Amino acid sequence: MWGGISGFSLRRLLIGHPLATAQLRHERLTKIKALAVFSSDALSSTAYATEEILLMLILAGSGAVGLSIPLALGIATLLAIVAFSYYQTIHAYPGGGGAYIVARDNLGTFPGLVAAAAILTDYVLTVAVSISAGVAAVTSAFPVLYPYRVPIGVFLIAVITILNLRGVRESGTIFSIPTYFFVGMTLTMIGVGLGRWVLAGMPPAQPPQIDYPATHALTLFLILRAFSSGCAALTGIEAIADGVPAFKPPESRNAGRTLIAMATLLITMFLGITFLSHQYGIVPDEHTHETVISQLGRVVFGDGTLLYYFFQAATMLILVLAANTAFADFPRLSFFLARDRYMPNQFALLGDRLVFSNGILALALASSLLLVIFDGKTTRLIPLYAVGVFLSFTLSQSGMVARWWRRRGPHWWLKMGINSFGAMMTAVVLCVFIVTKFIYGAWIVVLWIPIFIGFFLTVHRHYQDVAAQLSLEAFGSPPPIRRHRVIVPIAGVHRAVIAALNYARALSDDVTAVYVEVDPNETLKVRRKWQEWGDGVPLVVLPSPYRSIVGPLVDYVDRIDDKRRRDQVVTIVLPQFVPARWWHHLLHNQTALLIHLAFLFRREVIVTHVPFHLHLNHEEQRK
Amino acid sequence: MWGGISGFSLRRLLIGHPLATAQLRHERLTKIKALAVFSSDALSSTAYATEEILLMLILAGSGAVGLSIPLALGIATLLAIVAFSYYQTIHAYPGGGGAYIVARDNLGTFPGLVAAAAILTDYVLTVAVSISAGVAAVTSAFPVLYPYRVPIGVFLIAVITILNLRGVRESGTIFSIPTYFFVGMTLTMIGVGLGRWVLAGMPPAQPPQIDYPATHALTLFLILRAFSSGCAALTGIEAIADGVPAFKPPESRNAGRTLIAMATLLITMFLGITFLSHQYGIVPDEHTHETVISQLGRVVFGDGTLLYYFFQAATMLILVLAANTAFADFPRLSFFLARDRYMPNQFALLGDRLVFSNGILALALASSLLLVIFDGKTTRLIPLYAVGVFLSFTLSQSGMVARWWRRRGPHWWLKMGINSFGAMMTAVVLCVFIVTKFIYGAWIVVLWIPIFIGFFLTVHRHYQDVAAQLSLEAFGSPPPIRRHRVIVPIAGVHRAVIAALNYARALSDDVTAVYVEVDPNETLKVRRKWQEWGDGVPLVVLPSPYRSIVGPLVDYVDRIDDKRRRDQVVTIVLPQFVPARWWHHLLHNQTALLIHLAFLFRREVIVTHVPFHLHLNHEEQRK
Repeated sequence: MWGGISGFSLRRLLIGHPLATAQLRHERLTKIKALAVFSSDALSSTAYATEEILLMLILAGSGAVGLSIPLALGIATLLAIVAFSYYQTIHAYPGGGGAYIVARDNLGTFPGLVAAAAILTDYVLTVAVSISAGVAAVTSAFPVLYPYRVPIGVFLIAVITILNLRGVRESGTIFSIPTYFFVGMTLTMIGVGLGRWVLAGMPPAQPPQIDYPATHALTLFLILRAFSSGCAALTGIEAIADGVPAFKPPESRNAGRTLIAMATLLITMFLGITFLSHQYGIVPDEHTHETVISQLGRVVFGDGTLLYYFFQAATMLILVLAANTAFADFPRLSFFLARDRYMPNQFALLGDRLVFSNGILALALASSLLLVIFDGKTTRLIPLYAVGVFLSFTLSQSGMVARWWRRRGPHWWLKMGINSFGAMMTAVVLCVFIVTKFIYGAWIVVLWIPIFIGFFLTVHRHYQDVAAQLSLEAFGSPPPIRRHRVIVPIAGVHRAVIAALNYARALSDDVTAVYVEVDPNETLKVRRKWQEWGDGVPLVVLPSPYRSIVGPLVDYVDRIDDKRRRDQVVTIVLPQFVPARWWHHLLHNQTALLIHLAFLFRREVIVTHVPFHLHLNHEEQRK
Repeated sequence: MWGGISGFSLRRLLIGHPLATAQLRHERLTKIKALAVFSSDALSSTAYATEEILLMLILAGSGAVGLSIPLALGIATLLAIVAFSYYQTIHAYPGGGGAYIVARDNLGTFPGLVAAAAILTDYVLTVAVSISAGVAAVTSAFPVLYPYRVPIGVFLIAVITILNLRGVRESGTIFSIPTYFFVGMTLTMIGVGLGRWVLAGMPPAQPPQIDYPATHALTLFLILRAFSSGCAALTGIEAIADGVPAFKPPESRNAGRTLIAMATLLITMFLGITFLSHQYGIVPDEHTHETVISQLGRVVFGDGTLLYYFFQAATMLILVLAANTAFADFPRLSFFLARDRYMPNQFALLGDRLVFSNGILALALASSLLLVIFDGKTTRLIPLYAVGVFLSFTLSQSGMVARWWRRRGPHWWLKMGINSFGAMMTAVVLCVFIVTKFIYGAWIVVLWIPIFIGFFLTVHRHYQDVAAQLSLEAFGSPPPIRRHRVIVPIAGVHRAVIAALNYARALSDDVTAVYVEVDPNETLKVRRKWQEWGDGVPLVVLPSPYRSIVGPLVDYVDRIDDKRRRDQVVTIVLPQFVPARWWHHLLHNQTALLIHLAFLFRREVIVTHVPFHLHLNHEEQRK
């Protein structure tokens, strides 16, 4: 019946009816499905990684774009190292080895919190970057929509949010479609593009189609900036290691093989796109805002062909799916943190539909805000992106190093060596990120992560304090209450007052009515009526020279309440109108509320409202 | 001590300390002071009335401005008629004859409410128009301030608001200064201007200094629009009739003479300004935004002279004073309406400083809003202005006609004739207003006044219903409560729960603890702890398949609560944390609040919170 209140009907329509706890179950995924579910984030980054490298290089003029090939090879190598490093984590943590858990278990609580802050921040950025890139795939095909990119992006986030609030059940099968659609379209595009190049006698790369003048010198700094931007391709690679328990047994082995398959696909697609873009002379277009990958698709499949539009749709869908991944991961990590008392309790609650609704809503809000602030432009978000991921990579690999050092299993020195190399590489890249992207936006993340950690620690200290204050250890039971004084403040004598008085008399034999006198003429009327209706309860009249109702009442309770006696309690019983319409509240003085607030911070005084329900009109009451 | 809470210190600084009711007293005014206090609204309108006429006439080209003289004479005649009509009201209503009271007494409640709605609306416009014209006096002298007219205006309203919230005591003396300063400066300006004209051999009027092309034909409609705009000069003429009791005795005689003095001054100043503007060829300047009266002052006193700046300062001051008048009148009329139960009760409360604070704040808010919406431009506000005043003039005079007809004193037919003529004239002008100003903004007022009246009637019906529902007439005392069941919902077993349980046991012997089970593992722990701490109180465990805490609790109370028995009551005693910092609330589930809300609309169930005060940290608690 609680769910039947009218305001909740829209919510029911969008979110659906509540699900029973018993319905909570986990689907085990085959490798094929798992690849689709866990790799959308990583694979989808090929849709913008090449473009971000080129955007940096063209600052040094069109001649510098050739550097994209060695940079892509460097990034692919880094990717292989990180993947190999995570392959070990998968086998060490068959229960799921997220960076928070690995760092906390092996390095201690604080590094764990740093990893958690970093990765939660990056989940927000994953949504913002993926959605803005997904909208860019749409506006590349239909340039007329470009001015509406922010509302379209916010709308897509809203749709994902609602789907996640409903709870996405049949995840494996449905999620396979966009991922394999994108993988298929991209591999086809690369195959056709390479085929044409081979058939044409493998000509050297065409010069860039747009001639950009050099506005910056081609410094090492600029090359490292291009490398940093391209490293966005590595985000999401940790997803499989986080989700090992979702695999069919043997979980670790299946997850490890899926990771290798994903890394291979990702490297192939990223290198293929980068190579072909260079061959066909494709560079970002500042005027049409068309993405590099859309230009490439147009050249390879032909402008206006069905295949080109399929390719754009596939790009958009996998990017939306990548954003959706964060909607599963962010609430889950928030739940772990809330369970460990580092985030507010609300994030640990399973909602009606067995999902962590508060985490979903927090992510939707934060990512929409980013989308609006950064005007829905992927390039403006990229400097903030991947900083958190690489920080968590480093901490997670370091945690594994510490683990091998302590446990010393077979081949421990080899395993430790692999993770050490991974940790060092990601640490170096993290430093490169911070140096090259700092002034372009990374400072926001560098500033934000410590604030976020401070928040975790403050929340934790608060919960610990509360638990200590509530603890029954060394707690002597309070003495039973011997004297219970009940005060009924009245503003007149009417039915609501009589109802409150009747209730007060049921609580205690020690009842006093109190009237605060503002106008002496009124007092006479009240006294006369009280004679008739007060039923012998004494009436105290308090003068109020300043017309305040609350002040004299507080002073009166102060006078009668002996705070040294723990076996005495004072209850204030207030008649409270409950109007038939919410706006009727505005037509009544909120004196009852003010009295409640005045006593809220005073120990030993309890304020009780006795509701008196008003009808819509007098006639209705008679019924 | 209630006033000592820190959030209130800024309020105390601005508004001052509370005043005792005994300090409420009324100052009786001499004719000299009363003229100053009551006529600022009326006299200040000469600062913009001429300009508004000219602004309409120049639409028909510069050649049409000569019509300002006959139009001003027409308006002056109307003014004399209205003043004479009000002279009679003063003698008939020595207790103060505001339009609401006169219309209500003689025509009935509904016409009274129409007059009240009309005049309250016009008070808001008086503030907006006077402040925007006052700011125009400043920006005419210092054009660099013109872009800041809206913030300056809002700042002036804020200052007036604070002064009025403090309560303006020494009104008479202080208010005399700006009024007589303005009257003196204006009469000096007119005298000097006429003197120059006579000395120059009374030359014919100069052609307009700026040549405006005719964009509209000089139709009767345009002439009537100019007349309507100029009628703003009549606003405020009713102020003396409203305030008769403030005069020294014999009140009516003194008030009547003051009215005649005011009308004479107003006609002299208005005609003088209009005549001289015509003689010196002054027309509104669309580029410099300098007011007509400022241009006139510059020509007569000389550009940059001290006298010119004095004249501008005087204009500004009387306009601010005119706005201030509304800050006395609006809250007073709101009080009358609230006392009669047509406005929310809050408007009938005397604040700390013996002023009707809510009325003052409502007026400040509404007029600031108008200032912002109409961009601080007097001309854009004028079409809305005076519609309400003329509606209330008409109703008030009609009320007087009805009064003479009923009472038939000596010369009743003469007196009735005068008031009939006044009512007819103002009714005709009102029709002219509505026709000529409708599309330019008057429609807002025409639409608003019925809405406002509807609001009065809705509020009134609500209060009547509540009074009927609370009435003790034909009310049998409720039976004493025989069974008092107390339910203590618990989420665990800790100190706050023990405190609530202790209190519950003081209320009744029939106490049951209720635990809503979400996780069966937790239930075992709770049961074990309850064995130790529950002190024999039975514990009921409710299953909650959908994880809702509120739902199963409501169902349980429904089951045990026999609604047919009026001698039985159920109280729910909830432990309530009171955190040491307000934001700590965000870290706790608001389950207690949700439970309270769920039961608020259910009769016979009372929810009591037992506050458990948390300290800032565990160590502090030990102290």
